[in-house]
Amino acid sequence: MQKTSSSTKLPSTTFSEIAAFVRELYASPEAFIPLHAPVFLGNEKKYLAETIDSTFVSSVGAFVNRFEEMMADITGARYAVAVVNGTAALHVALKMVGVSQNDEVLSQALTFVATANAISYEKAIPHFIDVDADTLGLSPRALLHRLEAVAELRNGACYNRETGRRIAACVPMHTFGLPARIEEIVAICERYHIPVVEDAAESLGSYVGERHTGTFGRVGTFSFNGNKTVTCGGGGALVTNDEQVAKRAKHLTTPAKPPHRWEYVHDQIGYNYRLPNLNAALACAQLEQLEHYLANKRATAQRYAEFFRDVADIEWIGEPENTRSNYWLNAIRLAARDERDRFLTYTNDAGVMTRPIWKLLNDLPMFRDCPRGDLSVARRLEDTIVNLPSSVRP
Amino acid sequence: MQKTSSSTKLPSTTFSEIAAFVRELYASPEAFIPLHAPVFLGNEKKYLAETIDSTFVSSVGAFVNRFEEMMADITGARYAVAVVNGTAALHVALKMVGVSQNDEVLSQALTFVATANAISYEKAIPHFIDVDADTLGLSPRALLHRLEAVAELRNGACYNRETGRRIAACVPMHTFGLPARIEEIVAICERYHIPVVEDAAESLGSYVGERHTGTFGRVGTFSFNGNKTVTCGGGGALVTNDEQVAKRAKHLTTPAKPPHRWEYVHDQIGYNYRLPNLNAALACAQLEQLEHYLANKRATAQRYAEFFRDVADIEWIGEPENTRSNYWLNAIRLAARDERDRFLTYTNDAGVMTRPIWKLLNDLPMFRDCPRGDLSVARRLEDTIVNLPSSVRP
Repeated sequence: MQKTSSSTKLPSTTFSEIAAFVRELYASPEAFIPLHAPVFLGNEKKYLAETIDSTFVSSVGAFVNRFEEMMADITGARYAVAVVNGTAALHVALKMVGVSQNDEVLSQALTFVATANAISYEKAIPHFIDVDADTLGLSPRALLHRLEAVAELRNGACYNRETGRRIAACVPMHTFGLPARIEEIVAICERYHIPVVEDAAESLGSYVGERHTGTFGRVGTFSFNGNKTVTCGGGGALVTNDEQVAKRAKHLTTPAKPPHRWEYVHDQIGYNYRLPNLNAALACAQLEQLEHYLANKRATAQRYAEFFRDVADIEWIGEPENTRSNYWLNAIRLAARDERDRFLTYTNDAGVMTRPIWKLLNDLPMFRDCPRGDLSVARRLEDTIVNLPSSVRP
Repeated sequence: MQKTSSSTKLPSTTFSEIAAFVRELYASPEAFIPLHAPVFLGNEKKYLAETIDSTFVSSVGAFVNRFEEMMADITGARYAVAVVNGTAALHVALKMVGVSQNDEVLSQALTFVATANAISYEKAIPHFIDVDADTLGLSPRALLHRLEAVAELRNGACYNRETGRRIAACVPMHTFGLPARIEEIVAICERYHIPVVEDAAESLGSYVGERHTGTFGRVGTFSFNGNKTVTCGGGGALVTNDEQVAKRAKHLTTPAKPPHRWEYVHDQIGYNYRLPNLNAALACAQLEQLEHYLANKRATAQRYAEFFRDVADIEWIGEPENTRSNYWLNAIRLAARDERDRFLTYTNDAGVMTRPIWKLLNDLPMFRDCPRGDLSVARRLEDTIVNLPSSVRP
């Protein structure tokens, strides 16, 4: 790798070297290289066939229970509840901490749209906060700054002085598997009596110290969509240490039917958010491979880190200190937006899939009028961060 | 079978004869007989394995497209959109016809709770109408009677004079696969400018004349839950002849991302309601068996019909004139509630699963204050209708 560029415009030779490096990494000289494709190496077919043989493909079954046990075991949370996808997990988690219509929910402006969608399902309003440049996750400093500016405690609850609305929850997200400063966030939220729902959709296998992401908030949520480290087609999970929350979440998602031998009596508006046993079977087979996947992805991240050490004007984003990232998606920072666009065009044209980070949610038409703090870091990152192919390598 | 009873109390010898008949029907002298269990006879395992081999287990894939084509073909609707379950299908269908917060949605008091839950997700309010004693579905007479009492047209929309709220949709449901008087219902709703969302969750393979249920309303919805005629673990579908509705439904459920090579820009609050390709694979294999299942279930219904012809004080409920039921769940009517309870206790104790029809939704705590018309037929049915085992027989 030649260090040739001293201008801010990277020469396209650098782009071609990056594309060539990714092709070498995936031992794929010609085929299209996706951002993240699932890999099936273990008991996937066997477990799927078992659901057919047992006829338990639907809303109850041994794999649902096993999946919940595995998730509790992996995360170290006391309870896990399987649901149909990560968005459903978030929606239920928000209901578990009491979010309801016209409440505000703090979250980061730079996150996948599901976070704000889930807030909107209860007709609550997202309130956007800036992120940190190193973690890409919710910034505790920006959070505190914003709360100091607009929050007040009344009767033990937090209110936004400017809008008069209750601030009912805070949802930090561990972007691309890089752990956010979750301990600081939780400490600030405690001071303001704001429950934390931890969006760990992307961070299965990511830790802060020895503690798994998703277990710092009152509830943590995970996704098992097709693009995640581990997939079950579609699936999600909530984790919590609070027995009442676990029981209520199970009740609400199954859907709100107290057990009776034959009576179908429902005691609240429920949700058909159960994970089918079919999908749970796939999740179990995939989770059995988790350690292998994580080690493989860690090695990939290491390769990227080494490669980009020698590339001018591109920074590979590594795990923050005292954390362990699952390196779900590798991310790099380019110098500027036009540079990013040239890179995206070049690599995608070359059959190496790359993708910019999300558009800030407050720029989407449905969230344009939501309250927000200063978002200057998020704005800068929006223009310059790109994801690279990060599937488990063969 | 002896006709012994002339009192209203059936002797328990009759109950034991019924239980014995069900055991004979399912060639199962001892094992527990469920109400409805799935049967897998065809390409289920093969198609599931194909999703693993292709790695397309998640939100896109050939089986999703094939499932949608099969559903359009089977129902005769122009378009079908696959979603994650029947409740999601209903929720999206209501949004497609414009239901929003504080609207009222007419539906039957006697239906599965998902119907009213889906109405509530948009913070709309169910408005309960009576059912017909023969179809168990929404009564056009009761509907007209109620509309004449409370409805008025203002600027082309229908309003409830008593509550001031807009009546934004009507959701009839084809109970247990028995077709409701859907043509009359649609005609009345047209007069009042009320769009019809047809809940066909239970009626795949049920027809009115030559036309498949679910195709009379603006949108029809189906469920493929584990207890349905055809299952994919969890799954649902919308059908419609309206291209715009089909496109908007697909957009809203995928979730609201206009296509772009790499940009992730979402233009409205979307829903993660996509059916995973894994589940669609199972749905395709099951739909290939649909004709066989329907014929098998029709023969079962015939056996029940013949058996109950000779049982005093119990009426088996057959398909209404000019319709063809899929006989998803066979239903009988007992003389009174205490009789029903004795029957439920006896049969479930004997390992033959039976179940009463649903509790009226307006009696559930969350729907207690919803508007409603006279519900005397539904009330009578609630006390006396019981479902019998109806799985596809070996």
